Amino acid sequence: MKKLPLCLLGLLLLAGAARADEGMWLFTNVPKDHLKKKYGFDATEKWLTHLQKSCVRFPGGSGSFVSADGLVMTNHHVASGAIQRLSSKKKDYLRDGYLAAGRDKELKCEALELNVLVDITDVTRRVNKAVKPGLSPGQAAEARRGVLSEIESEGAEKGKFKSEVVTLYQGAQYHLYRYKKYTDVRLVFAPEGQIAFFGGDPDNFEYPRFDYDVTFFRVYENGKPASTPNYLRWAGKAVEEGDLNFVAGHPGRTSRLLTVAELEYLRDTGLPFVMHRLNRLEVLYATYSDRSAENRRQAKNVLFSVQNSRKAYIGELAALLDPEVMSARREQEKRLREKAAMDEEFSEARGAWDRIAAVQKVRAKNIRRYTLLEGVAAGFNSQLFGIARTLVRAADELPKDNKDRLSEYTESALPSLKLRLFSKEPIYPGFETAKLADSLTFLANELGAESPLVKKVLAGKSPADRAYELISGTKLLDVGVRQKLFKGGKEAVKAANDPMLALARAIDPESRAVRKVLEEQVEEVKSQAYAQVAKVKFALEGTSTYPDATFSLRLAFGPVKGYVEQGKKVPYTTTFAGLYERARENNFKSPFNLPDRWLKNKDKLDLKVPFNYVLAADIIGGNSGSPVVNRAGELVGLIFDGNIQSLAWEFAYSDRQARAVAVDAQGILHALRAIYGAGHLADEIAGKR
Amino acid sequence: MKKLPLCLLGLLLLAGAARADEGMWLFTNVPKDHLKKKYGFDATEKWLTHLQKSCVRFPGGSGSFVSADGLVMTNHHVASGAIQRLSSKKKDYLRDGYLAAGRDKELKCEALELNVLVDITDVTRRVNKAVKPGLSPGQAAEARRGVLSEIESEGAEKGKFKSEVVTLYQGAQYHLYRYKKYTDVRLVFAPEGQIAFFGGDPDNFEYPRFDYDVTFFRVYENGKPASTPNYLRWAGKAVEEGDLNFVAGHPGRTSRLLTVAELEYLRDTGLPFVMHRLNRLEVLYATYSDRSAENRRQAKNVLFSVQNSRKAYIGELAALLDPEVMSARREQEKRLREKAAMDEEFSEARGAWDRIAAVQKVRAKNIRRYTLLEGVAAGFNSQLFGIARTLVRAADELPKDNKDRLSEYTESALPSLKLRLFSKEPIYPGFETAKLADSLTFLANELGAESPLVKKVLAGKSPADRAYELISGTKLLDVGVRQKLFKGGKEAVKAANDPMLALARAIDPESRAVRKVLEEQVEEVKSQAYAQVAKVKFALEGTSTYPDATFSLRLAFGPVKGYVEQGKKVPYTTTFAGLYERARENNFKSPFNLPDRWLKNKDKLDLKVPFNYVLAADIIGGNSGSPVVNRAGELVGLIFDGNIQSLAWEFAYSDRQARAVAVDAQGILHALRAIYGAGHLADEIAGKR
Repeated sequence: MKKLPLCLLGLLLLAGAARADEGMWLFTNVPKDHLKKKYGFDATEKWLTHLQKSCVRFPGGSGSFVSADGLVMTNHHVASGAIQRLSSKKKDYLRDGYLAAGRDKELKCEALELNVLVDITDVTRRVNKAVKPGLSPGQAAEARRGVLSEIESEGAEKGKFKSEVVTLYQGAQYHLYRYKKYTDVRLVFAPEGQIAFFGGDPDNFEYPRFDYDVTFFRVYENGKPASTPNYLRWAGKAVEEGDLNFVAGHPGRTSRLLTVAELEYLRDTGLPFVMHRLNRLEVLYATYSDRSAENRRQAKNVLFSVQNSRKAYIGELAALLDPEVMSARREQEKRLREKAAMDEEFSEARGAWDRIAAVQKVRAKNIRRYTLLEGVAAGFNSQLFGIARTLVRAADELPKDNKDRLSEYTESALPSLKLRLFSKEPIYPGFETAKLADSLTFLANELGAESPLVKKVLAGKSPADRAYELISGTKLLDVGVRQKLFKGGKEAVKAANDPMLALARAIDPESRAVRKVLEEQVEEVKSQAYAQVAKVKFALEGTSTYPDATFSLRLAFGPVKGYVEQGKKVPYTTTFAGLYERARENNFKSPFNLPDRWLKNKDKLDLKVPFNYVLAADIIGGNSGSPVVNRAGELVGLIFDGNIQSLAWEFAYSDRQARAVAVDAQGILHALRAIYGAGHLADEIAGKR
Repeated sequence: MKKLPLCLLGLLLLAGAARADEGMWLFTNVPKDHLKKKYGFDATEKWLTHLQKSCVRFPGGSGSFVSADGLVMTNHHVASGAIQRLSSKKKDYLRDGYLAAGRDKELKCEALELNVLVDITDVTRRVNKAVKPGLSPGQAAEARRGVLSEIESEGAEKGKFKSEVVTLYQGAQYHLYRYKKYTDVRLVFAPEGQIAFFGGDPDNFEYPRFDYDVTFFRVYENGKPASTPNYLRWAGKAVEEGDLNFVAGHPGRTSRLLTVAELEYLRDTGLPFVMHRLNRLEVLYATYSDRSAENRRQAKNVLFSVQNSRKAYIGELAALLDPEVMSARREQEKRLREKAAMDEEFSEARGAWDRIAAVQKVRAKNIRRYTLLEGVAAGFNSQLFGIARTLVRAADELPKDNKDRLSEYTESALPSLKLRLFSKEPIYPGFETAKLADSLTFLANELGAESPLVKKVLAGKSPADRAYELISGTKLLDVGVRQKLFKGGKEAVKAANDPMLALARAIDPESRAVRKVLEEQVEEVKSQAYAQVAKVKFALEGTSTYPDATFSLRLAFGPVKGYVEQGKKVPYTTTFAGLYERARENNFKSPFNLPDRWLKNKDKLDLKVPFNYVLAADIIGGNSGSPVVNRAGELVGLIFDGNIQSLAWEFAYSDRQARAVAVDAQGILHALRAIYGAGHLADEIAGKR
């Protein structure tokens, strides 16, 4: 690998410091001048349109076309739901992977729809016209909902297309995005889960990294591979340090408008309390798992989910404790407040920051109680409790007018509520008891054992005894009982004489009360105040900046670039040699074990080929599976993660250490041939070489 | 195994409920009437004296003579320090175990002293005479220290004996305990660490259980096995449910006098905060460990220690959340307060409970800050910080008069301080940085990132950057540097220009201030108030009850008895068959793997032989290694743990579910022969059978 000479690297780093490559840009508003000036790159409309039409949206993730015959590439972890649904007891494709020997062996996926963005129309004026001035906030919201659903329904065309209006810049712009839908999607290739997520939780959000996190699908139309003339050609060589890279994908959500007061709330109260709760859960689930192999199986999913969240929040909290991040946000806020103070148009907005600051105090005061009783109901960590609460509330809510119900009981929400309520997914009483005993203890610790609410909940018993009484006494394990109670409504629920239903009923007044405080005194005030702040920001910056992420197509860019951590240079790339070394230094023990194919075919690999690499492009969750292209628009990588520092990008971009992490396209191709003998697939994406 | 018929068992349980077998009794004050009435057992002086003289005290644990030739039995986990010191890179006895082929192969242990209680003298009157009425609390304490050290020094006799004055009933009685010292102690047999602690953390403090937690030593005098005519004969058969058992050993500490207000403080503030901190540490250490095999090695000890504490505190917290425990304590307190109110002698004591309640508020307000800055310095979780603080404070304290110094810098404390300060034990900068970054984050979360103290500590950096700056910048890894700075005193420390020393210096005023609050406004007030409470209790109960544990010899007793947990009967005993089943159901994976010998020699075992069992005798930490004997004074078991419910015994005894856990003597003997081929040893303890 040729690296840039050090002196030149120094210059590049300085240039980077001068104006960072921040931004998840709209394809309709790419910072062409910046690209031209800093990189001498011409972002032509042709180049952009080709890239846009090569991009594919997955449920919760991103992807791209990589051949003219409808071949789509994404991450294994984006594809894993679909792969799981294809698997059975006999064929565990998630564990063992899959390679279709020919197109007739490609496996049709259930319930997987892919979207390709076809065109974008600015509908801001039409939306604003429909929302007449002088309406109350409630009326305005209703008028807005009306016009949006009208616009969206017009865009549909015989089921092959779907339309979404995207709210940009917190409501300063509305764009209509029209997508082509692909509903016949077939699995072409998936690696073994172990190599896709090599290193497991320990290496999650870390770098250096060694993951083959890739999967290929093919979209079909009329039973034949779809023709996809817009696809990304595979680059002929690997990236090098300093190369300009582009990432096109669907970042899900960012919070870059939050005021300093809200960031401080998150830093000093919100995130520490989340971490406190997650650490407790992680220890609980880990120790429960360690008691037996069967326990481990039962707790596997929730343990992984807690570990993943814990890492993400550690990164976010670290960002908020980074003075660089906070001072940048203070600067921004100062500019906005000055603009509001100067400009009579924003007289209403002037108090917005203070209103947001004031509600943080209400939030801080109520967040523990809210989290314990409502929210995630952390004081009642039990699926059976969740079922009991749903039955109790459904009995109360369903007789009401649709508009007066709690949001999760409205007509449009009912199908998914029933799906969960009547799910036959197994529930394990032993695990339920352990979780409930621990969470009742947490409830008592946080609210005080002598508080009337805690005394009512524990009913004169210890948390362990009470949890056992509730779990062993409830009939709600039985889906038939749930169905009968749901149908029977209030009378049936009352007559059931079920201890879990009785508990859910008993705490409902307190639980609804704290929810009301959060919704009315915090969320509603915030949403109005942030709309004001957003107006000021838009007036100041207009479309010279990018809007917060909205799970719609965006372009990010930045150089391939290593970084310095704890005084050590972290190189921009890893190789296959590094993979085997990482496995060896951990004695090939899980999660550092390697699939058989990777052990058996090691000799066929060129160990110097790059495997994963980092780049300083501005991404976030939802970008998983995004293609990375070079100046020529050729595919050079596949985004699959960010390092721990990149989690700060939820709040603010910095390229000091934060990096996006990609699988190198050369590594993908090489392993396809050497490890999987998938020459036909490699030929399709790269031509014969 | 013959079990009691169910009807009879019911009667026994009822009887147990009527009057539980609570108590860690002095050998000079055994509840003979209770034993006679409930069990028809005559605790004769002869029986007691024989048992007393058969008992051995280990550092931090208990043991007993089991042959006339000085053979001593204790737990492997009590012996592990000594076994570790005997091990080398080539011979890892802690992992592989050891069996001396003959007496000439017994391995002499470094720095292991065993004590056998020879006689007990009541010296209460002499102590009270020396502490004249009218002295100030400080003068009284000094006078008491004086007379105690005078009494203790009289008891010594040519180095073969040692004397300790034991403070009983919170100072209502003082007893002089004279011990014979054995300093030539040799290792005879130790099993593999894996079978001694089979099940590791998951099974720690749990039951059913399958641990071969036993080790044999032999004491020597003049180079020959000591003659020990008082030893415990091995029982000819295993215990059965309902059998009366006795435990003789050295319980370390109980807190059964704590007022309800203090228990509530522990329940609602103290223990929840400890758990919060421990959960955080456990996740930190576990994730650090998971990153690599080398990391795992570095973090192994601290991770184990955190896990062990976590389980212990979970048990204690569960006890305080058990209404049964709290109402018993409320009852007791009511009786004591009524006595104080009635009796003019205790007019001074009447306010004691309220004074103790008042200081709990001060404690609750300060405990976070105290724990973060002082105490365990949880905000600065780094060995190098600890070293820096010691150097900074030594420079300040050593020039002072001995009596004015902080307690850990007095002349008598200096040797052990220097031992730690100049220890060559390796310190791992990477681990130090991870720990410090996490704890600085904890500090910021708990005190608020904008607090002046946190800003001073972080010095404008993020926790991670600051931790790296401190650890990479300090010179204190070098023991030579520490020695020079210790010798050089204040001037040298100031001139060192070391960032860690500067940090320790910078926060010292705040840290000393919060220590002063805790010491003067909490501990001192408490200690005076509790002395008053103890006087009332002693007046009410006298020696009809037992004193709190003091790591001196005690007798506990109770029936062999299973219990009911979550509606299921937990049988009183396990067998070798259960051991193999527990290993199998966990696929023989660590910590459920079995040593080779246990796999290879399985066929030689009678799998029906009992392995571990539970009994309702009142024990606590320090009882590890205690012999369990039957009515005939024969050895039937070896205490090695309590179940999670027994951790409640720190505060109050209950026999509903709490149990002591023992290795069955028959299991010990059987495995010695069948697994280890240690026929000669088995013959020595049990005669040829």
